[in-house]
Amino acid sequence: MRADYINPFIASLQNAFSTMLHCDVRRGAISLKDSSSPTYEISGIVGLSGKAVGTVVVSFSEAVAIKAASVMLLHDTTEVNADVVDAAGELTNMVAGGAKAKLEEYELSVSLPNVVTGRGHEVRFPSDVTPICVQFETDWGPMALEVGLTEVPAAVTT
Amino acid sequence: MRADYINPFIASLQNAFSTMLHCDVRRGAISLKDSSSPTYEISGIVGLSGKAVGTVVVSFSEAVAIKAASVMLLHDTTEVNADVVDAAGELTNMVAGGAKAKLEEYELSVSLPNVVTGRGHEVRFPSDVTPICVQFETDWGPMALEVGLTEVPAAVTT
Repeated sequence: MRADYINPFIASLQNAFSTMLHCDVRRGAISLKDSSSPTYEISGIVGLSGKAVGTVVVSFSEAVAIKAASVMLLHDTTEVNADVVDAAGELTNMVAGGAKAKLEEYELSVSLPNVVTGRGHEVRFPSDVTPICVQFETDWGPMALEVGLTEVPAAVTT
Repeated sequence: MRADYINPFIASLQNAFSTMLHCDVRRGAISLKDSSSPTYEISGIVGLSGKAVGTVVVSFSEAVAIKAASVMLLHDTTEVNADVVDAAGELTNMVAGGAKAKLEEYELSVSLPNVVTGRGHEVRFPSDVTPICVQFETDWGPMALEVGLTEVPAAVTT
Protein backbone atom coordinates (compact mmCIF):
# COMPACT_ATOMS: atom_id res chain seq x y z
CA MET A 1 0.00 0.00 0.00
CA ARG A 2 1.33 3.42 -0.95
CA ALA A 3 1.60 5.72 2.07
CA ASP A 4 -0.28 8.57 0.40
CA TYR A 5 -3.40 6.41 0.03
CA ILE A 6 -4.00 6.92 3.73
CA ASN A 7 -4.75 10.63 3.36
CA PRO A 8 -8.27 10.29 1.90
CA PHE A 9 -9.19 8.02 4.81
CA ILE A 10 -7.85 10.48 7.40
CA ALA A 11 -9.69 13.37 5.76
CA SER A 12 -12.86 11.32 5.51
CA LEU A 13 -12.76 10.36 9.21
CA GLN A 14 -12.21 13.96 10.29
CA ASN A 15 -14.99 15.10 7.97
CA ALA A 16 -17.47 12.49 9.23
CA PHE A 17 -16.81 13.43 12.86
CA SER A 18 -17.01 17.15 12.25
CA THR A 19 -20.16 17.15 10.09
CA MET A 20 -22.11 14.37 11.82
CA LEU A 21 -20.97 14.83 15.40
CA HIS A 22 -19.46 18.34 15.61
CA CYS A 23 -16.45 16.63 17.12
CA ASP A 24 -12.91 17.76 16.43
CA VAL A 25 -10.56 14.84 15.71
CA ARG A 26 -6.83 15.50 16.12
CA ARG A 27 -4.44 13.28 14.23
CA GLY A 28 -1.63 11.63 16.16
CA ALA A 29 1.10 9.24 15.03
CA ILE A 30 0.98 7.41 11.71
CA SER A 31 2.75 4.07 11.64
CA LEU A 32 2.73 0.69 10.02
CA LYS A 33 0.42 -1.49 12.06
CA ASP A 34 2.26 -4.00 14.20
CA SER A 35 1.45 -5.99 17.30
CA SER A 36 2.10 -2.98 19.52
CA SER A 37 -0.40 -0.69 17.75
CA PRO A 38 -3.03 0.25 20.32
CA THR A 39 -6.55 -0.80 19.49
CA TYR A 40 -9.71 -0.16 21.39
CA GLU A 41 -12.82 -2.00 22.54
CA ILE A 42 -15.01 -1.54 19.45
CA SER A 43 -13.88 -2.09 15.86
CA GLY A 44 -15.88 -1.13 12.80
CA ILE A 45 -14.75 -3.11 9.75
CA VAL A 46 -15.70 -2.39 6.14
CA GLY A 47 -14.38 -4.14 3.04
CA LEU A 48 -13.42 -2.37 -0.17
CA SER A 49 -13.15 -3.99 -3.58
CA GLY A 50 -12.70 -2.94 -7.18
CA LYS A 51 -9.37 -2.36 -8.94
CA ALA A 52 -7.90 -2.54 -5.44
CA VAL A 53 -9.03 -4.65 -2.49
CA GLY A 54 -8.78 -3.69 1.10
CA THR A 55 -10.38 -3.05 4.43
CA VAL A 56 -10.89 -0.11 6.72
CA VAL A 57 -10.94 -0.69 10.47
CA VAL A 58 -12.03 2.12 12.77
CA SER A 59 -11.09 1.25 16.34
CA PHE A 60 -13.22 3.22 18.84
CA SER A 61 -12.60 3.51 22.54
CA GLU A 62 -15.83 2.74 24.38
CA ALA A 63 -16.14 6.38 25.45
CA VAL A 64 -15.96 7.65 21.86
CA ALA A 65 -18.42 5.07 20.50
CA ILE A 66 -20.96 5.71 23.26
CA LYS A 67 -20.74 9.49 22.93
CA ALA A 68 -20.95 9.31 19.12
CA ALA A 69 -24.11 7.20 19.34
CA SER A 70 -25.61 9.61 21.88
CA VAL A 71 -25.05 12.57 19.53
CA MET A 72 -26.28 10.74 16.42
CA LEU A 73 -29.44 9.50 18.14
CA LEU A 74 -30.08 12.63 20.20
CA HIS A 75 -30.45 10.70 23.43
CA ASP A 76 -27.92 9.66 26.03
CA THR A 77 -26.57 6.16 25.90
CA THR A 78 -24.33 4.80 28.64
CA GLU A 79 -23.48 1.28 27.55
CA VAL A 80 -22.48 -0.57 24.38
CA ASN A 81 -25.87 -1.60 22.99
CA ALA A 82 -27.31 -2.11 19.49
CA ASP A 83 -27.48 1.67 18.93
CA VAL A 84 -23.78 2.06 19.68
CA VAL A 85 -22.92 -0.85 17.39
CA ASP A 86 -24.98 0.70 14.58
CA ALA A 87 -23.42 4.12 15.08
CA ALA A 88 -19.91 2.64 14.95
CA GLY A 89 -20.79 0.72 11.78
CA GLU A 90 -22.35 3.76 10.15
CA LEU A 91 -19.33 5.96 10.94
CA THR A 92 -16.96 3.31 9.58
CA ASN A 93 -19.06 3.12 6.45
CA MET A 94 -18.85 6.89 6.04
CA VAL A 95 -15.07 6.83 6.41
CA ALA A 96 -14.79 4.17 3.69
CA GLY A 97 -17.39 5.83 1.45
CA GLY A 98 -15.78 9.27 1.69
CA ALA A 99 -12.32 7.92 0.89
CA LYS A 100 -13.57 5.83 -2.00
CA ALA A 101 -14.77 8.97 -3.79
CA LYS A 102 -11.23 10.36 -3.67
CA LEU A 103 -9.64 7.12 -4.86
CA GLU A 104 -11.76 6.97 -7.99
CA GLU A 105 -9.04 5.36 -10.11
CA TYR A 106 -9.75 2.13 -8.18
CA GLU A 107 -13.51 2.14 -8.80
CA LEU A 108 -13.99 0.90 -5.25
CA SER A 109 -17.22 -0.38 -3.84
CA VAL A 110 -17.94 -0.74 -0.16
CA SER A 111 -19.30 -3.84 1.62
CA LEU A 112 -21.54 -3.98 4.70
CA PRO A 113 -19.94 -2.91 7.97
CA ASN A 114 -19.37 -5.40 10.76
CA VAL A 115 -18.69 -4.24 14.28
CA VAL A 116 -16.58 -6.31 16.64
CA THR A 117 -16.98 -5.87 20.39
CA GLY A 118 -15.10 -7.41 23.30
CA ARG A 119 -12.14 -6.28 25.32
CA GLY A 120 -8.82 -7.63 24.16
CA HIS A 121 -9.92 -8.55 20.65
CA GLU A 122 -7.47 -7.98 17.84
CA VAL A 123 -8.26 -7.39 14.16
CA ARG A 124 -5.52 -8.80 11.99
CA PHE A 125 -4.76 -8.31 8.31
CA PRO A 126 -3.28 -10.89 5.92
CA SER A 127 0.50 -11.06 6.48
CA ASP A 128 1.27 -9.97 2.90
CA VAL A 129 -0.55 -6.66 3.43
CA THR A 130 1.00 -3.89 5.51
CA PRO A 131 -1.81 -1.83 6.96
CA ILE A 132 -1.21 1.74 7.98
CA CYS A 133 -2.37 2.76 11.43
CA VAL A 134 -3.26 6.31 12.48
CA GLN A 135 -3.95 7.39 16.05
CA PHE A 136 -6.49 10.10 16.85
CA GLU A 137 -7.48 12.06 19.91
CA THR A 138 -10.91 13.59 20.45
CA ASP A 139 -12.43 15.41 23.40
CA TRP A 140 -14.31 12.19 24.11
CA GLY A 141 -11.27 9.88 24.11
CA PRO A 142 -8.88 8.10 21.75
CA MET A 143 -9.52 6.19 18.57
CA ALA A 144 -7.51 4.72 15.68
CA LEU A 145 -7.85 4.03 11.98
CA GLU A 146 -6.27 1.10 10.16
CA VAL A 147 -6.32 0.78 6.39
CA GLY A 148 -4.92 -2.00 4.24
CA LEU A 149 -5.36 -1.63 0.48
CA THR A 150 -3.69 -3.56 -2.27
CA GLU A 151 -3.95 -3.15 -6.04
CA VAL A 152 -5.45 -6.03 -7.96
CA PRO A 153 -3.14 -7.20 -10.77
CA ALA A 154 -4.50 -6.00 -14.15
CA ALA A 155 -4.93 -9.57 -15.40
CA VAL A 156 -7.53 -10.21 -12.73
CA THR A 157 -9.66 -7.19 -13.50
CA THR A 158 -9.74 -7.52 -17.29
CA MET B 1 -31.61 -11.64 2.78
CA ARG B 2 -33.39 -14.51 1.02
CA ALA B 3 -32.85 -17.81 2.81
CA ASP B 4 -31.79 -19.65 -0.34
CA TYR B 5 -28.80 -17.31 -0.77
CA ILE B 6 -27.12 -19.19 2.06
CA ASN B 7 -26.75 -22.42 0.07
CA PRO B 8 -23.84 -21.28 -2.15
CA PHE B 9 -21.93 -20.28 0.99
CA ILE B 10 -22.57 -23.63 2.68
CA ALA B 11 -21.50 -25.55 -0.44
CA SER B 12 -18.44 -23.35 -0.82
CA LEU B 13 -17.34 -23.91 2.79
CA GLN B 14 -17.76 -27.67 2.50
CA ASN B 15 -15.91 -27.64 -0.81
CA ALA B 16 -12.99 -25.57 0.54
CA PHE B 17 -12.57 -27.87 3.52
CA SER B 18 -12.81 -31.05 1.48
CA THR B 19 -10.47 -30.02 -1.36
CA MET B 20 -7.90 -28.00 0.62
CA LEU B 21 -7.93 -29.90 3.90
CA HIS B 22 -9.52 -33.30 3.17
CA CYS B 23 -11.81 -32.51 6.08
CA ASP B 24 -15.45 -33.52 6.13
CA VAL B 25 -17.71 -30.71 7.36
CA ARG B 26 -21.16 -31.71 8.62
CA ARG B 27 -23.88 -29.11 8.58
CA GLY B 28 -25.85 -28.51 11.78
CA ALA B 29 -28.63 -26.06 12.54
CA ILE B 30 -29.43 -23.08 10.32
CA SER B 31 -30.92 -20.09 12.12
CA LEU B 32 -31.19 -16.34 12.04
CA LYS B 33 -28.22 -14.99 13.95
CA ASP B 34 -29.12 -13.64 17.35
CA SER B 35 -27.29 -12.97 20.56
CA SER B 36 -27.44 -16.62 21.53
CA SER B 37 -25.77 -17.90 18.34
CA PRO B 38 -22.53 -19.60 19.39
CA THR B 39 -19.39 -18.09 17.99
CA TYR B 40 -15.82 -19.21 18.43
CA GLU B 41 -12.38 -17.77 19.17
CA ILE B 42 -11.30 -16.84 15.64
CA SER B 43 -13.45 -14.99 13.10
CA GLY B 44 -12.54 -14.56 9.45
CA ILE B 45 -14.43 -11.63 7.91
CA VAL B 46 -14.68 -10.82 4.21
CA GLY B 47 -16.76 -8.08 2.61
CA LEU B 48 -18.77 -8.51 -0.57
CA SER B 49 -19.96 -5.72 -2.81
CA GLY B 50 -21.57 -5.30 -6.22
CA LYS B 51 -25.30 -5.37 -6.95
CA ALA B 52 -25.62 -6.65 -3.39
CA VAL B 53 -23.50 -5.80 -0.36
CA GLY B 54 -22.69 -8.12 2.46
CA THR B 55 -20.20 -9.89 4.61
CA VAL B 56 -19.22 -13.45 5.31
CA VAL B 57 -17.97 -14.38 8.77
CA VAL B 58 -16.43 -17.79 9.34
CA SER B 59 -16.16 -18.45 13.06
CA PHE B 60 -13.51 -21.09 13.79
CA SER B 61 -12.96 -22.83 17.10
CA GLU B 62 -9.29 -22.63 17.99
CA ALA B 63 -8.88 -26.36 17.40
CA VAL B 64 -10.25 -26.14 13.86
CA ALA B 65 -8.17 -23.09 12.91
CA ILE B 66 -4.95 -24.60 14.29
CA LYS B 67 -5.49 -27.96 12.59
CA ALA B 68 -6.46 -26.28 9.30
CA ALA B 69 -3.25 -24.23 9.34
CA SER B 70 -1.19 -27.34 10.16
CA VAL B 71 -2.63 -29.18 7.15
CA MET B 72 -2.31 -26.21 4.77
CA LEU B 73 1.29 -25.54 5.79
CA LEU B 74 2.34 -29.17 6.14
CA HIS B 75 3.79 -28.64 9.59
CA ASP B 76 2.28 -28.87 13.04
CA THR B 77 1.16 -25.68 14.70
CA THR B 78 -0.03 -25.66 18.30
CA GLU B 79 -0.94 -22.03 18.99
CA VAL B 80 -2.75 -19.16 17.25
CA ASN B 81 0.10 -17.46 15.39
CA ALA B 82 0.41 -15.54 12.11
CA ASP B 83 0.17 -18.78 10.11
CA VAL B 84 -3.14 -19.67 11.75
CA VAL B 85 -4.46 -16.16 11.16
CA ASP B 86 -3.47 -16.34 7.48
CA ALA B 87 -5.01 -19.79 7.07
CA ALA B 88 -8.30 -18.60 8.61
CA GLY B 89 -8.30 -15.54 6.33
CA GLU B 90 -7.54 -17.61 3.26
CA LEU B 91 -10.29 -20.12 4.01
CA THR B 92 -12.79 -17.31 4.59
CA ASN B 93 -11.75 -15.78 1.29
CA MET B 94 -12.32 -19.09 -0.47
CA VAL B 95 -15.79 -19.42 1.04
CA ALA B 96 -16.72 -15.94 -0.21
CA GLY B 97 -15.02 -16.43 -3.58
CA GLY B 98 -16.68 -19.79 -4.23
CA ALA B 99 -20.14 -18.47 -3.34
CA LYS B 100 -19.71 -15.32 -5.41
CA ALA B 101 -19.31 -17.44 -8.56
CA LYS B 102 -22.73 -19.00 -7.91
CA LEU B 103 -24.40 -15.65 -7.19
CA GLU B 104 -23.32 -14.16 -10.50
CA GLU B 105 -26.45 -12.01 -10.88
CA TYR B 106 -24.98 -9.76 -8.17
CA GLU B 107 -21.59 -9.29 -9.85
CA LEU B 108 -19.99 -9.50 -6.43
CA SER B 109 -16.40 -8.67 -5.71
CA VAL B 110 -14.57 -9.73 -2.59
CA SER B 111 -12.55 -7.49 -0.24
CA LEU B 112 -9.45 -8.41 1.80
CA PRO B 113 -10.05 -10.78 4.70
CA ASN B 114 -9.59 -9.62 8.27
CA VAL B 115 -9.22 -12.11 11.09
CA VAL B 116 -10.38 -11.27 14.59
CA THR B 117 -8.88 -13.11 17.54
CA GLY B 118 -9.64 -12.93 21.25
CA ARG B 119 -11.91 -14.95 23.50
CA GLY B 120 -15.33 -13.48 24.02
CA HIS B 121 -15.32 -11.20 21.00
CA GLU B 122 -18.53 -10.78 19.07
CA VAL B 123 -18.96 -9.85 15.41
CA ARG B 124 -22.14 -7.85 14.91
CA PHE B 125 -24.02 -6.92 11.75
CA PRO B 126 -25.99 -3.72 11.13
CA SER B 127 -29.37 -4.02 12.84
CA ASP B 128 -31.28 -3.68 9.55
CA VAL B 129 -29.61 -6.81 8.16
CA THR B 130 -30.61 -10.26 9.35
CA PRO B 131 -27.64 -12.55 8.97
CA ILE B 132 -28.13 -16.27 8.63
CA CYS B 133 -26.04 -18.48 10.88
CA VAL B 134 -25.10 -22.09 10.13
CA GLN B 135 -23.42 -24.43 12.59
CA PHE B 136 -20.92 -27.06 11.44
CA GLU B 137 -19.17 -30.00 13.05
CA THR B 138 -15.84 -31.37 11.87
CA ASP B 139 -13.61 -34.13 13.26
CA TRP B 140 -11.41 -31.31 14.56
CA GLY B 141 -14.13 -29.36 16.39
CA PRO B 142 -17.03 -26.99 15.76
CA MET B 143 -17.27 -23.95 13.53
CA ALA B 144 -19.99 -21.62 12.22
CA LEU B 145 -20.75 -19.51 9.18
CA GLU B 146 -22.62 -16.21 9.23
CA VAL B 147 -23.72 -14.43 6.07
CA GLY B 148 -25.51 -11.12 5.71
CA LEU B 149 -26.29 -9.99 2.17
CA THR B 150 -28.59 -7.25 1.04
CA GLU B 151 -29.54 -6.13 -2.46
CA VAL B 152 -28.52 -2.64 -3.48
CA PRO B 153 -31.51 -0.63 -4.75
CA ALA B 154 -31.36 -0.35 -8.55
CA ALA B 155 -31.14 3.46 -8.38
CA VAL B 156 -27.79 3.18 -6.60
CA THR B 157 -26.18 0.85 -9.09
CA THR B 158 -27.23 2.62 -12.28
